Amino acid sequence: MDFVTATYRLRCAAAEAAALAQQIALEQTVEVPESMLGSPRIREEIVGRVRSITPSASDDEHFETVIDYPADVAGPHAGQMWNLLYGNISLKRSVRLIDVRLPDSLNAQFPGPKYGISGLRDMLGVYGRPLLATALKPRGSSPEQFAALAGNFARGGGDFVKDDHNLVESTFTAFCERVDRCQSAVERVAAETGHLCLYAPNLSPPIHELSRYTDFLVQRGVRSVLIAPFLLGLDSVRHLAESTPLFLMAHPTFTGAYFHDPEHGIEPGVLLGQWFRRLGCDATIFPNHGGRFSFSPSECQSIVTAARSESEHCRSCWPVPAGGMSYERLPEMARDFGADSIFLIGGALISDVANVEAGTRRFADQITSLFPDHQQQPPQPASFISACELPDANAQAKQILAHLAFRDGFTWDGRLPVAYKASTELPFAGVSRTELIGTHGEQTAFDVRYFEIESGGYSSREKHEHTHVIMGMRGAGQLVT
Amino acid sequence: MDFVTATYRLRCAAAEAAALAQQIALEQTVEVPESMLGSPRIREEIVGRVRSITPSASDDEHFETVIDYPADVAGPHAGQMWNLLYGNISLKRSVRLIDVRLPDSLNAQFPGPKYGISGLRDMLGVYGRPLLATALKPRGSSPEQFAALAGNFARGGGDFVKDDHNLVESTFTAFCERVDRCQSAVERVAAETGHLCLYAPNLSPPIHELSRYTDFLVQRGVRSVLIAPFLLGLDSVRHLAESTPLFLMAHPTFTGAYFHDPEHGIEPGVLLGQWFRRLGCDATIFPNHGGRFSFSPSECQSIVTAARSESEHCRSCWPVPAGGMSYERLPEMARDFGADSIFLIGGALISDVANVEAGTRRFADQITSLFPDHQQQPPQPASFISACELPDANAQAKQILAHLAFRDGFTWDGRLPVAYKASTELPFAGVSRTELIGTHGEQTAFDVRYFEIESGGYSSREKHEHTHVIMGMRGAGQLVT
Repeated sequence: MDFVTATYRLRCAAAEAAALAQQIALEQTVEVPESMLGSPRIREEIVGRVRSITPSASDDEHFETVIDYPADVAGPHAGQMWNLLYGNISLKRSVRLIDVRLPDSLNAQFPGPKYGISGLRDMLGVYGRPLLATALKPRGSSPEQFAALAGNFARGGGDFVKDDHNLVESTFTAFCERVDRCQSAVERVAAETGHLCLYAPNLSPPIHELSRYTDFLVQRGVRSVLIAPFLLGLDSVRHLAESTPLFLMAHPTFTGAYFHDPEHGIEPGVLLGQWFRRLGCDATIFPNHGGRFSFSPSECQSIVTAARSESEHCRSCWPVPAGGMSYERLPEMARDFGADSIFLIGGALISDVANVEAGTRRFADQITSLFPDHQQQPPQPASFISACELPDANAQAKQILAHLAFRDGFTWDGRLPVAYKASTELPFAGVSRTELIGTHGEQTAFDVRYFEIESGGYSSREKHEHTHVIMGMRGAGQLVT
Repeated sequence: MDFVTATYRLRCAAAEAAALAQQIALEQTVEVPESMLGSPRIREEIVGRVRSITPSASDDEHFETVIDYPADVAGPHAGQMWNLLYGNISLKRSVRLIDVRLPDSLNAQFPGPKYGISGLRDMLGVYGRPLLATALKPRGSSPEQFAALAGNFARGGGDFVKDDHNLVESTFTAFCERVDRCQSAVERVAAETGHLCLYAPNLSPPIHELSRYTDFLVQRGVRSVLIAPFLLGLDSVRHLAESTPLFLMAHPTFTGAYFHDPEHGIEPGVLLGQWFRRLGCDATIFPNHGGRFSFSPSECQSIVTAARSESEHCRSCWPVPAGGMSYERLPEMARDFGADSIFLIGGALISDVANVEAGTRRFADQITSLFPDHQQQPPQPASFISACELPDANAQAKQILAHLAFRDGFTWDGRLPVAYKASTELPFAGVSRTELIGTHGEQTAFDVRYFEIESGGYSSREKHEHTHVIMGMRGAGQLVT
């Protein structure tokens, strides 16, 4: 039997610790006292099991208890998982969730980032140094002003520009208009200078319009979004990660109450690091210590560690320290968080509106000088001219092909492989799918996809109503007919 | 200009209070220091305005500050509203949200419950006393066991039986099967005894399957659901309230961190009372004091007050005290919470599985004896026989008509009026719509709806592709052609 293993820190008298731990195990699963369980099967298959209770080394009123919850009890989605881990007991005093371990059987359900650290590096062609990011603000600026800001940041060497998480429009049309301008601005810089900077609009529509918004973004060629899991809903994030090709950067707004009291709530590393990652966020913003907010240096490290830890069976997630960072703090941030992080610099970088390009260049230069071993984009494969690159190729094909630069090893710029059918009940293993043509705004009546089955992997036997044409590209495998 | 007015309690030195209040007003709207605002229009139209800072009467380190946020800044949905009220500042220490006032201009956006207290009373025909509710548990019981529990509770005089909020199935089919059994159980009691008891399944599907689940429930004749706003996502609740005819009972799971520290987070009355109501929840469960959880008597009262307050411009919401309540506490609950509340009794009522009917009867009798002036269902109008009631009427029509008992004043049992197009931009006022035939599982190629325009109300001028037949039923009005 598989278990989700949760560790809680309790504050109570020694004589009460065992009863409190048992109460948690019952409350979170069956919500009745032990006497009401009825069938022994329920005790066996549903109720949490208290594995250990360990007194604190430093005082006599804190205890750590490890509880195993049968994995099936977690339920089929992220909201219900959080109900299991910290639902009703959030309404009790002095219980803090400090660690969660998932069994391999849930990896498919919470497969983590589609891109993560390596995926975004490949997208941008930047290796061995932190990325430089900024935020479009203040709200109330015009679309033209935001677009100019994004363009100047990209031109100055910035890697990632996101909307402020307060940036929302009251209509879909206004959203599309502003996004189009900002996206055009970074695209123009890429076309003119070859420097890629990703733009991430704030995705916060009325919930029933979510797919209308994401459809627009994907068709427009936008590759990343800013999302706030606690505004959008936890399972909506998991679903977004699964159903769209967008790189997801998570914002921690509205989560603070879970961290405030060290004797209650959830460790920041568990929620913002491990779980935002497990939900499929490719990057997770957190307020760095010494800024406008209240995390301690060790809490920041716990988020970074959880976001990148290799013990989670999924791609790693970019930690994004933010919240009032300055030029002077870059060396310290470089030392604390290392190359695999995104430095999100807001006010300090964009406050001098007339000099954003130069200001960005100053930050970017400092980052590259702090990481002298960083690498440029790996050399492109020997180039060739395709029919679509001929001078008279039609405009739409050109636009699509602009997102489809062929790269080494059967990879494509802007089309990243996604774990295939990881969360269905069909037997699949080690299969990734790259959507090349058909789902990104092209008007073809067919889709072109590249599947790769890794060594030891397999797909399932399926029948389809529609016609498939399958071409073997490389490698060797066994075909079962 | 309209404002959302928020009051925060701050803990700080007197010298810092003004700066902290101003910091909140900026952080929640533009997220930049004042020096970066640029255009004066942004200060005028976007930035929050500190209206007052009042020192605490009892000590010198607490202050209350009232901040007006321009109403347009709230954004088009519930998630973004919470971002405005308590997003980033949740990550700061010592700021608690204690009061929120909405301008009339946002009433349409957050129209509150569709049914509320009066709507559920009309549905059940119970007036002047609290309702008796229970929860189906423990998880792990069979569908047959749950159905028996629901049936016995209904037979004993219970008014409302909900699923435990931990009750989820791993497949849609299993969910439908269990719901069908439980719904059939309460329907059977209604058919045999005339006593109506509403069944509310736990609606907690993977988020992208939400409408699949609600479509099934509506077609199956289920009229209410249990939802957990913090698992489902805030705007998903608002959307559910708007787009389905289901009575929504809200569960507070996963909200506890917002209440834990009186110097941080959100007042329980604001979140569980006012806001769950504003999102469209018809009832809000809270852990009563003296049970398994940690709310104080005054926190409980604040939830009750906010759920029923007449100063909100929407239908009132049932407060549902729960969390380890007993027979002995009924008189105290009756005194504290009054007739317009739902007493949710779990373990104490269903623990003796063999005697749920008698146990329920004992609780129900005690409640009616505590409210001697309660009334029975108002007398039915003079009855008549319709074609569908003839012995040879077809089975499907009978099934549908069972949900469509005609009642006084152009109302129908099981088909309740819903405020019509309250949240669109078209000009409508005082219009309610009752869906009679067409959207509840019937196989007709047309819909039958009853619209009522109240005195002073109006509908808008619209054109449709499809054919409308409109019959005036009663009253007088002006038709603009």
